[in-house]
Amino acid sequence: MKEKKHEQSNSTGTPLHKVGEFGLIELLTSDFVTLSPHTIQGVGDDAAVIQVKDDHCVLLSTDMLVEALHFDPIYSSFEHIGYKAVVVNLSDICAMNALPRHITVSIAISNKYFVEHLQALYKGIHLACKEYDIDLVGGDTVSSLRGLTISISALGIQQYPRIAYRHGAKPGDLLCVTGNLGAAYLGLLLLEREKQLFLKNPDLQPVLPEKYSYALQRQLKPDARTDIIQLWQHQDFIPSALIDVSDGLASDLLHICHRSNVGAIVEESKIPIREDIRLMALDFNHDPITCAMNGGEDYELLFTAPEDKLPLLRYMPDISIIGEIVPKNEGIHLLTTGGKKVPITAQGWQHFSSPKEKK
Amino acid sequence: MKEKKHEQSNSTGTPLHKVGEFGLIELLTSDFVTLSPHTIQGVGDDAAVIQVKDDHCVLLSTDMLVEALHFDPIYSSFEHIGYKAVVVNLSDICAMNALPRHITVSIAISNKYFVEHLQALYKGIHLACKEYDIDLVGGDTVSSLRGLTISISALGIQQYPRIAYRHGAKPGDLLCVTGNLGAAYLGLLLLEREKQLFLKNPDLQPVLPEKYSYALQRQLKPDARTDIIQLWQHQDFIPSALIDVSDGLASDLLHICHRSNVGAIVEESKIPIREDIRLMALDFNHDPITCAMNGGEDYELLFTAPEDKLPLLRYMPDISIIGEIVPKNEGIHLLTTGGKKVPITAQGWQHFSSPKEKK
Repeated sequence: MKEKKHEQSNSTGTPLHKVGEFGLIELLTSDFVTLSPHTIQGVGDDAAVIQVKDDHCVLLSTDMLVEALHFDPIYSSFEHIGYKAVVVNLSDICAMNALPRHITVSIAISNKYFVEHLQALYKGIHLACKEYDIDLVGGDTVSSLRGLTISISALGIQQYPRIAYRHGAKPGDLLCVTGNLGAAYLGLLLLEREKQLFLKNPDLQPVLPEKYSYALQRQLKPDARTDIIQLWQHQDFIPSALIDVSDGLASDLLHICHRSNVGAIVEESKIPIREDIRLMALDFNHDPITCAMNGGEDYELLFTAPEDKLPLLRYMPDISIIGEIVPKNEGIHLLTTGGKKVPITAQGWQHFSSPKEKK
Repeated sequence: MKEKKHEQSNSTGTPLHKVGEFGLIELLTSDFVTLSPHTIQGVGDDAAVIQVKDDHCVLLSTDMLVEALHFDPIYSSFEHIGYKAVVVNLSDICAMNALPRHITVSIAISNKYFVEHLQALYKGIHLACKEYDIDLVGGDTVSSLRGLTISISALGIQQYPRIAYRHGAKPGDLLCVTGNLGAAYLGLLLLEREKQLFLKNPDLQPVLPEKYSYALQRQLKPDARTDIIQLWQHQDFIPSALIDVSDGLASDLLHICHRSNVGAIVEESKIPIREDIRLMALDFNHDPITCAMNGGEDYELLFTAPEDKLPLLRYMPDISIIGEIVPKNEGIHLLTTGGKKVPITAQGWQHFSSPKEKK
């Protein structure tokens, strides 16, 4: 109690935003060592890897989504929020080259919401489970002090030799990405624009032009690339390094490079951006490449592969070779269409913003 | 957006407290069917059971703990909050007759807290991990709108034939419980009393008499009974039904009875309550039996076993035989020391209280 009194009256301390999300995780978990011989991968990748029997492993990932920070009920329906919360977690299991099979869902929800909101949320969760053949196997539903918080854990099973990590990329490896990038971020910009107009005049009907529908869909109802994981399983292909693009190409490439102790060169002209998304970026006065590099939430797979896999990769559908892994001392650069080499720096989300920056 | 506008302005709907925690879980998850042949147990027990390879299964449980609802930083230190959050989840894996091995920890925390608070929280988490040989293998740290929310998932590995469920109790089975009951609730009453005095006069030093130290410890730093699970493993004993006492003996016995489709008779005189706890209950004008039946948070193991296990059970340390499983039509009763048969009803926690009941 004495101890608590001290903590409650403690008005000085290190504000959370001073350390930032990644710094905080590092600071908090650096004391933890993994002791079990079953723990193949602990903190530090998209999912933990735990050996269960022989070379059969379980992959476990978890994510916490907070209202106003990760989703906004003003422009996202509860069905969409539920659907996306599941997909984001499934993508983490894909990012280990495994198929997700099971999830648990925990919800903290405040009294401002009704049972009907939760039902809509679970409708979205249910839809995602059906779409990806996922079993919901547990969870918790509790009341919260404010707003909605969703915590999902996803579980997959994979054989040890098939699991891919952020580490493993080697100089000379090809750098590849699935699908296309930048659209989810532009979808967010559109929704934010309409939200501001709506807040100024609640009678105004939102304008969500048909030409922006792909961006909207990518933001509100993203895909986890289980199809690619199945294809790789079928073709017996294993990436040398793998991550999903949740924070943006720049930030996620940096993760691969840091964990693999390598550099990289990305060719601007090779970054897959749809033509309608390029045009939309210009409508919003944004550089399409910046949207792809720093936007995030695309949930595509960024991976590396030895050069001798080139013939195989060339015939894989929906995959772009965007660059190459180089030795660490050559750094991490974007080679622009103009022929310039620009260093790539992290521009991923900062969850803990300074109070002054808050609106 | 239109949809959202509707939801935001929707001031009518079914309030969450009208349905209650268990009703809500039932309502939200009844549409979900488990499809994977790997899913042995989905929602509805203390942990999910997922078959990985041959008869090797993974047990997965998850819990969400919310400030002011599950813990109160006014009387619980952050070290204690972190420690207890882990133990509560480990207990869920024990409740399946398995040893927990791995956890993930996700935290949502508001700007009113500092990095030092998180460090203290993780110190408690670390201590629990060391105490129980647990590897922390993942998690998430995000900012919250208000207060602290902790979501923990725990994972264990067990062979299929050794897993115990809430179902499985049969008429004639012995009803048993580990350790002793009621202390954690009295610890909470003591802390609540001191909190009220502290709120009235913050200069007042809390009075936590030495004679109440056991109750305090049970509330602030509970144990998960991994020692019992290890003993059972060693003695090759498997309960016919098993649950941990988190909501109180009454509520958790009802879970076993409902899932096993049986009744039960509990002998009041056999319920294990420490002498100091009986005296403490009287100090607080509470009936010791009511504390054991409805208090909760003891994290002991409530289990059943066929009668022929009696010789084995008699020599197991720290186990009390408190009654018997009977056919369903005989109901669920407490046999008082006065010889009366009183029906046992659920008095477990209600997370969603009516706004009117809120202080």
